[in-house]
Amino acid sequence: MRIVVDGMGTDRAPGIEVAGAFAALRELPDDFDIVLVGDETLLRGELERHGDFPLERLHVEHAPDRVIPGAAPASVLRKHPDSSIVRGLRLHQEGRADAFVSAGSTGAVMAASLFILRPLEGVDRPAIGTLLPTAKQPVLMVDAGANVDCKPHHLVQFAHLGHIYAQDLMGREEPRIGLLNIGEEPEKGDELSVEAHQRLARDPGLLFVGNIEGREIIRGHCDVLVCDGFCGNVLLKFYESVAQYFMTMLRRRLAGLGDRPELQETFRALDYSEYGGAPLLGVNGVSIICHGGSSPKAIRNAIRVAAQSVRSSMVEHIARDLSSKEPV
Amino acid sequence: MRIVVDGMGTDRAPGIEVAGAFAALRELPDDFDIVLVGDETLLRGELERHGDFPLERLHVEHAPDRVIPGAAPASVLRKHPDSSIVRGLRLHQEGRADAFVSAGSTGAVMAASLFILRPLEGVDRPAIGTLLPTAKQPVLMVDAGANVDCKPHHLVQFAHLGHIYAQDLMGREEPRIGLLNIGEEPEKGDELSVEAHQRLARDPGLLFVGNIEGREIIRGHCDVLVCDGFCGNVLLKFYESVAQYFMTMLRRRLAGLGDRPELQETFRALDYSEYGGAPLLGVNGVSIICHGGSSPKAIRNAIRVAAQSVRSSMVEHIARDLSSKEPV
Repeated sequence: MRIVVDGMGTDRAPGIEVAGAFAALRELPDDFDIVLVGDETLLRGELERHGDFPLERLHVEHAPDRVIPGAAPASVLRKHPDSSIVRGLRLHQEGRADAFVSAGSTGAVMAASLFILRPLEGVDRPAIGTLLPTAKQPVLMVDAGANVDCKPHHLVQFAHLGHIYAQDLMGREEPRIGLLNIGEEPEKGDELSVEAHQRLARDPGLLFVGNIEGREIIRGHCDVLVCDGFCGNVLLKFYESVAQYFMTMLRRRLAGLGDRPELQETFRALDYSEYGGAPLLGVNGVSIICHGGSSPKAIRNAIRVAAQSVRSSMVEHIARDLSSKEPV
Repeated sequence: MRIVVDGMGTDRAPGIEVAGAFAALRELPDDFDIVLVGDETLLRGELERHGDFPLERLHVEHAPDRVIPGAAPASVLRKHPDSSIVRGLRLHQEGRADAFVSAGSTGAVMAASLFILRPLEGVDRPAIGTLLPTAKQPVLMVDAGANVDCKPHHLVQFAHLGHIYAQDLMGREEPRIGLLNIGEEPEKGDELSVEAHQRLARDPGLLFVGNIEGREIIRGHCDVLVCDGFCGNVLLKFYESVAQYFMTMLRRRLAGLGDRPELQETFRALDYSEYGGAPLLGVNGVSIICHGGSSPKAIRNAIRVAAQSVRSSMVEHIARDLSSKEPV
């Protein structure tokens, strides 16, 4: 198996990416290798610092260009055809690699993935799945920001995408699907969620557990939380920031106590880098999107997620599930 | 000044309400009194337990009925005309009291307030304002759940409602208005927020500071955060639950440390009862909605908010601002 890693994505590229790739190789089986895409000189310089490793499992593919943060996602292909994102995705699309991992701008990775890998048959709008820490197991939220102004049938597709991911990667045999909403009763919510609720409830391929209010998310009573990408994105970013804020505030106020194992454990439960990247679900390939501020551990975990996605045949399962779908 | 307090709203009514009313009277000036509305026997029984107080400032108005949680908001007036919510609001509407405070079901209080007090001229959709704790001062989020499927001009009205409230009750002379969105740039977001952004930006009566992403909320860079009630409600409930969850988790893991003043202070910053109730902005009257799980302190603070709203002539200011508004 071969995973392409965008070497130029993080805020501190390529050091973070190279360290993450080394960490992944250390724990993954021998038949697994990584292609780092990016500025060859920078990448080779960084690799030399980790000289103690079988370099035959770590390849470099030169990409002279880099998509800078803030670049308009829609023009990435036209304006940055030689960027690490576009070249990396092409390696995957051409079958020279099995998956793609990038910590570049989310919008750019998403747009390029959509264009190069293309949506699977039956998928109108590929969506981003993100793991939210909860009081129980993590919950996969779909969509975390790829799509706004969704229609009810899009939310049903998100549910199916999440269903397969939860089965293949999260070990949830019969994933419970929840709909993010502002009340428990089926008639609660905006037009989108009232109609989506009805469709989800009558879909025979899903175990729909009903509406999940804001206050229920943290309880972890579902495996997949379905929502429009607008609300999902607001919620995700808020969650990340509030967790960081609490930690900073506590560390400051509890000076000296911040290193206690109990506190560390609490913080770790809220640490997104434990979970790795967010998959773009519904494209014909594996594309894992990481934070620009990722640590080597986060990159390693995203590579692990990519490998698991390939190994479990997630894309084939999604294709099979969605292409046969009658609209409900 | 006279404030009507629904005596039957909280989960532990009327004890909480009576204790909250006593606490409010203790700190408010002598020309201020409270009417508790609800089951007279229960209320008088509870009042007797606080016998050490000038009862001429605490009146009881009998209401034989009570709106139970889960009652359909739309039918509250028809089915529960003798409830504490409906009778209390009528006292206010008839001019026999200056404000109304209730910890009853949010939907019921909102529906009854809309019907009995009526929206002010120029206000299409009254909205709930809620204070969110941030790293700086609290931010007023409008709408926190009264309205879904909003149009861009509704969000502009929410901005004006919040603007007046922030001036009159939060001491923010020139309130900074932010729009909840999924990106910083004006063109980011769904159809609603792209159009709302343009209208807010060209409104001469507002200091619009642009889009606020989920991760920016906690930083407190605006005074009023404008959003559709769907996203607002999800966010609010999530925030409350996640703060509680962190506190519970830390208390459990830091057994013995939970009582340290630094930790208490951290918890207090996240404690909604510090902030009191949420006003329904844009009706012809003062209606303050509290949590069903309110403490006496939360009720006291909501009464304080009600008194401040009356004293600052908030309703007149909203009426003046909104009735003269040309749609932007």
